[in-house]
Formats: sequence, structure tokens, C-alpha cells
Amino acid sequence: MDAKKHISNISSSPTLDMKILLDNLIKDGKTIYNFGIGQSPFPIPESMVFQLSVSSHFNSYVSSQGLYQLRSQIADFYQKYTITTICPNQIIIGPGSKELLHLVQMVFDYDIIIPNPSWVSYIPQAKINSNNVLLLETTMENNWKISPFELEKILQNTNSKKMLILNSPNNPTGQVYTEYELINISRVLRKYNALVLSDEIYSEFCFTQHYSIYKYYPENTIICSGISKFLSAGGWRLGFLIFPTELNDYKDLVINIASETYGSVSHPIQLATIVGFDTKVISPYTHLCTKILIEISNYIYQVLIDNNIMVKKSMGAFYLFPNFNSKIKSIHLLHQYNSLHHTDISFCQWVFTKLLQETGIGVLPGTAFGRPSNELSCRISFVDFDGTLLSNIGKTQIINRNIIEYCPKITQGINKLIQWWL
Amino acid sequence: MDAKKHISNISSSPTLDMKILLDNLIKDGKTIYNFGIGQSPFPIPESMVFQLSVSSHFNSYVSSQGLYQLRSQIADFYQKYTITTICPNQIIIGPGSKELLHLVQMVFDYDIIIPNPSWVSYIPQAKINSNNVLLLETTMENNWKISPFELEKILQNTNSKKMLILNSPNNPTGQVYTEYELINISRVLRKYNALVLSDEIYSEFCFTQHYSIYKYYPENTIICSGISKFLSAGGWRLGFLIFPTELNDYKDLVINIASETYGSVSHPIQLATIVGFDTKVISPYTHLCTKILIEISNYIYQVLIDNNIMVKKSMGAFYLFPNFNSKIKSIHLLHQYNSLHHTDISFCQWVFTKLLQETGIGVLPGTAFGRPSNELSCRISFVDFDGTLLSNIGKTQIINRNIIEYCPKITQGINKLIQWWL
Repeated sequence: MDAKKHISNISSSPTLDMKILLDNLIKDGKTIYNFGIGQSPFPIPESMVFQLSVSSHFNSYVSSQGLYQLRSQIADFYQKYTITTICPNQIIIGPGSKELLHLVQMVFDYDIIIPNPSWVSYIPQAKINSNNVLLLETTMENNWKISPFELEKILQNTNSKKMLILNSPNNPTGQVYTEYELINISRVLRKYNALVLSDEIYSEFCFTQHYSIYKYYPENTIICSGISKFLSAGGWRLGFLIFPTELNDYKDLVINIASETYGSVSHPIQLATIVGFDTKVISPYTHLCTKILIEISNYIYQVLIDNNIMVKKSMGAFYLFPNFNSKIKSIHLLHQYNSLHHTDISFCQWVFTKLLQETGIGVLPGTAFGRPSNELSCRISFVDFDGTLLSNIGKTQIINRNIIEYCPKITQGINKLIQWWL
Repeated sequence: MDAKKHISNISSSPTLDMKILLDNLIKDGKTIYNFGIGQSPFPIPESMVFQLSVSSHFNSYVSSQGLYQLRSQIADFYQKYTITTICPNQIIIGPGSKELLHLVQMVFDYDIIIPNPSWVSYIPQAKINSNNVLLLETTMENNWKISPFELEKILQNTNSKKMLILNSPNNPTGQVYTEYELINISRVLRKYNALVLSDEIYSEFCFTQHYSIYKYYPENTIICSGISKFLSAGGWRLGFLIFPTELNDYKDLVINIASETYGSVSHPIQLATIVGFDTKVISPYTHLCTKILIEISNYIYQVLIDNNIMVKKSMGAFYLFPNFNSKIKSIHLLHQYNSLHHTDISFCQWVFTKLLQETGIGVLPGTAFGRPSNELSCRISFVDFDGTLLSNIGKTQIINRNIIEYCPKITQGINKLIQWWL
């Protein structure tokens, strides 16, 4: 193949692969406990769906930056997380936050500081864009948070300009940075004039209080978010960036690149999303969804803890990131793995593939997020329940009942998981 | 700015800029004759619009390659242009053909042969992807077609692998390659094992018969097309690529890059597009639209020719590409331009900006498509008419009447244009 060298080894996104794998197993009639994919289980807010259906005849090319009314609505909505005023002109609408994170990496001639573990696509995007990656290790003991001290050690090397990617609420760990932590990180970043790309795609599915680092470090923070998670519209493909006015030239460059690549986001989709950011729509919706997610998350957390599995309580998003190395079975599994002399699959991947084959439980192995091959961590995505049912129940009356009874796949799957590790 | 050097001078797409400029002039109450933008004036087929409205609740992430049923429908539809069978697995669905042309340029480590004039985005995309550009000059005398002889001269330099971008029906010239011409081009390409990226976005708006070079050179042809033009859904953002099985590894790489960038195309949009490629929908629709476009195109052509303006008859798409250098006024304009000592704007751009200011007639100057600054060529896009009205008239009865009477902006604009050049 005469493909460009720096991209020739880009493989398919593990999360999308997992989705296809599990969908195929389900099609084959297998019983699957789908803890593998990070897709919202809830239906899109009804008023957004209605708006898309009545906007379906719109066919004009629109501005690459995005419809003004949508940018204006998002600016108003996001205002609660900042002190400085956000103007519509600071915002870019794109076909998914993933594409926008990619474009930001494309324009900046910066090294990218990526915490480990992190979402699966930051590193491949750095490769596609020939950006150097600097990994910033985190540990479960520190709640998978980056340490300002370790961050400073990386920033002290001034051979290159640097951009930190910070994701809170976090995929895959479910952890959330506190105001205090963000202030401390901002201090270090400011000292070295480093940028931060703040991936806040789960902001409205935060179980505590979401804070944006933009509040403390506006001059060098680019926010990235979208409607895939907290408005449950992953399949619609719409994300947004918020640039500080200080980085206006870069914002314009991203818009120019957009105008030469994807052009703009689908016109009907933009019109429908305007409705979604109306606080009368989004606030009760995310409030209810979050309430449900908290209950399910706490249930799984308690079962894991009760069975001596190391895990941190989830504070947002759909995820728990347990580690099974302490289970006796892991030693037997390691012997078995070693005796098979695998070279194409890591211990971690092998274990969780075996789990899937033997139980139908699909999780993403920690290695997909950058964890070491001998660490038996995995991401549990707790969305295998009927979100339509649960949001209807919530709307009518019984939100205060035990909603776990409506999540048979969650309870059965987690209990099967525990049994397997015994 | 610390932007990456090779992209820091990418400016906004001239076609999108023109759209914004003209939209703003219209908003200001100016009378505009919009010959500047290449957007279909027709409404999207009703059954597609209906399907989008009933698919608006679909919110799942879908395969980066695109929905199987859509790829299957496109494969069946495109079969008429090829001899070898097209399989759904050879097809990739993307958010607009522009993004897909970009991704093809991204993966191949090839020099790109671009005819001059050409569509405005091929060269910026080559820059974004660090591909070397080799311009292949064409002339009005040769109907703006590339010459196999000149092509061979470029291919004889074997220092690099090469990919030709061929666009028929052509933007901006409105010309269409014949079967005979494509066979001759194929022979040269095959001799040097060069690739061709065949941009066939106007295939169904061909006034004669559309041929794809894929038919004669399948092993090294990648077809790019989409629904923006002949299904009038530019604002929906959906395009497709057809790879030959011989280039399967590259196809997989494009899909992998897609999975790490835009992810997939909007799910509801894909579902609605399936309906559009049903031959019972697309065939009568494009037949009627083409009939209308031919009449309008011929009207403008005749007026230009009658007034001694050099132009080739349009054979497809929405475009005519006249040259006004033979008009006496061009000499006066050149004197005026020289006396102003402009350094920031070419003669060609200056003339057509003046035309817009004095008459409200918006065209894209030839320089936007790569023409020399002293050549007074421009692209006339003949879509400033009420496509909804005309397609309704067509459907009922009076398609054989003089449809020009329903296009007041076209007739007034062209006559104003002639007057201005006197």
C-alpha cells in the first residue's frame, strides 16, 4: 500500500468495533450483556424529534461555522459554566465532537498531553495529525485524576508548545474534576502558557456538579461538547467547540478547514438541535436521565465493592472502571494465557474476550484506553437498559421506587460477571 | 499563530463565501441575480423528505462505512455505469462528497493531477493533506477537456505515484467527457498505473449521456458522488465513494480514519437517502430536473453567443464558463484597473466584483477555479429560479411550453449582464 506512513496503521475505533461485534452476536440470537458501548439508552427529547420531522425539507447549504441561532442557543446554555460572556461567534458547530477534536488537533502545531487512561480516539487523532503525544499517568488511588505536579514536570520541558486534553466527566473512569482540582491545574497551565482542550461531552450527565476549566483559565481553554450523550443523539452527529476570543485566529482556521472538508453540519439536524438547547427542554430531561444513571451506577458500584473488586464510584457519564487483578482467578487466567504463548493479543484483551465468549458480557478492556497489558481493568458502560421505559416511568410517578427492577440486563449481567470471577 | 504551516494559509471556500455574501446582500434588500452558487434549485424528492420526517427518532451510532441498505441501494443504482458488478462492500457513505474527496487525498501518498480550471476545493484539500499538485492545463478551444497527450507528459515523470482528479459533468465548465475521450484517457492512465478519482457528483444532471471512467478503467478508479446536486440535498450532507476491490486496503483505511474523525453520517439522513436511490424515485425526478436545466442552459448560451461572448455550450451540471476578454469594455476596464494600482485583487476578481456592485449580478471569477488573473472568465451558475414552481409545472402538463417565462431572474440577469459589457 502506498498510503501515507503516519496514518497507514490507523485501525478502526475500538468502541465502534465493539458495537458491531455485539450487534452481530445479538443478531445471531446470543444473550448479550452490553456493557461495551457508550451510547445513551434514552430517547431523544420529543420536541427535538418533532422539530427534525418538520425540518426535513430544508436543503440549503449553510455556514460552515453553523447556524447563528443554534450557536446563540448553545452560548446561552453554556453561560452557567463560565464567568466571561460566551458569544455565538466563539462557537463552531461540527458533525460530532469527535470530528471537532480532530480538527483542533489538526490546526495546532503542539504536543498533546493525554492522561492515561483516556478515551480511545485522542491518540489515533494525534497520529493522524502528526502531533507528538505525551502521556500523563494517573492511578486509581488518585481517582484517575491528573496531578498538577506531574503535569508541571511535562510542561517544564519547553522544547515545544503543549496542549492538555482534559475530559470531565471522564470516559472511561466516570470521575469528575472538582472546582479545587481545576483551579490547581489552571495555575500550572497558566504558568507555562499551555492550552487545554476540555472535552465536556458528558457535562449534563454529571452526578455531582460539573465545572468547566474554562471558568478558571478562559484565555487558553477550548471547550468541546455535543448532543451525542446528554441529548441522546449520538446517531445525529452534531458537536460544538467554544473558543476563547484570544484564540480567534485558530477558530477561523478551523472554520476554513471545515469549509474545505465536511462543509457544514446537516441543515435539518441543526434546526432540530436548536430546540434541544432550550433550557425548558434540556434541564428537566438531563435531570431525569441523571437521576436514573446515578441509581444504576450506585447499584453496580455496590455489587462490585461487596465482592472485593477494586473500583472508584462513578461521578458522571455512563462508566465504571474496575480492576480485577486482586481476584484469585486472575492468577489462573495468567497461567493459562502464558501457556498459550499468544503474541497477537494482550493478557487484558484475552481475559475480557474470554469473558464475552463464556458469558455474553461485553466490556472494553483497559488496554483500549491505554492501560498496561497485564492490568485487568475494563470499562463497564451501564447503559444496557430500556431508557424509553425508564424515562416514561420517571415522568409519570415512580422515580423514587427502586428503578433497578426495570433493568434486568444490568442486574443479571453484573451478577454473572461476579460469578465468572469467583 | 502556532498553527501547522501547511494549513495556516487555508482560506474559506470561495463558493461558501459567495453564498454568504449574496445572502447578506439579499437580506439588505438588494436585488441580486445569483449566478454565484452551485446549489440545486429544486426541492428534495417528496418521498425522501417524508422518510426523514418519520426517521427523526433514530439516534443510534451506526457503522462508519454507512448503512448496508443504503450502500446496497447505491450499488444497484450505479450499476448502469459499469460493467463489473458493484458490491455494497465497495461503498463508503460520508458527510458530503467534499469530506470524502478530502479523505481520499489524505490516505494516498500520491501527487495529485488537477485539470485547470477545476472545482475550488481540490487544491486546498491537496494542501491540507500535503499532497503535491500537478496542474494539467485545458483550453476553451478543446472544450476544457484534458488531452491524453498532455496527461502522458505528466505521467512520464515517474518520481512519484500519481492520481488524476477527473470531474464529469464538470464544474465550472459544464462540459462532459464522451465515451471515446474516457477510453483514451484510460489507456494513458493504465500505461502508467495511475489512479483516477472520478468526481461524478453531477452524473444525473447530464444533458447528454453520463459515462464513468470506472467502466473502462475499473481497477484504478475511485468514484465520488453524493446527493447534494441531483437529489437537491446539499444541506443534508451525504456523499459516497465507490472503490474497486483492487484498492480494498485503501478503502479500509478510509473507513478507519472515518471511525476516528466524523464517526458516521447522521442516521436519519442515511435512512431517508435510501428512498432517494430507489429508481422509481430518482429516475423521473432527475429526468424532469435535467429537462428544465437544459432549456435554461440553452437559453443563456444562445444569448451569450448572439452577443459575441466566447462560451462553450453546457452539457451538464448547472454551469457555463464564458470568457469576456473579447469585449471592448475589457480594455477600458484594464486601463482603469491598472490606474488603481491594486495589489490585493486580481484584474479578473476586480472586474466581477465591480459587476456585482453595479448590477447585483453575482458570478464566481475564473481565478477561483485556477484561471489566470488577466483572463476575464467566470462561472455562471444558472440556478436562480423557483425550482419548486418549475418541477410542479413539469409534473402536471406544460413541460413543453417555454419554461423560460418562469425564470424572470435568469432572463433579467443575463440581459443585464449583456448590457453591462456593452
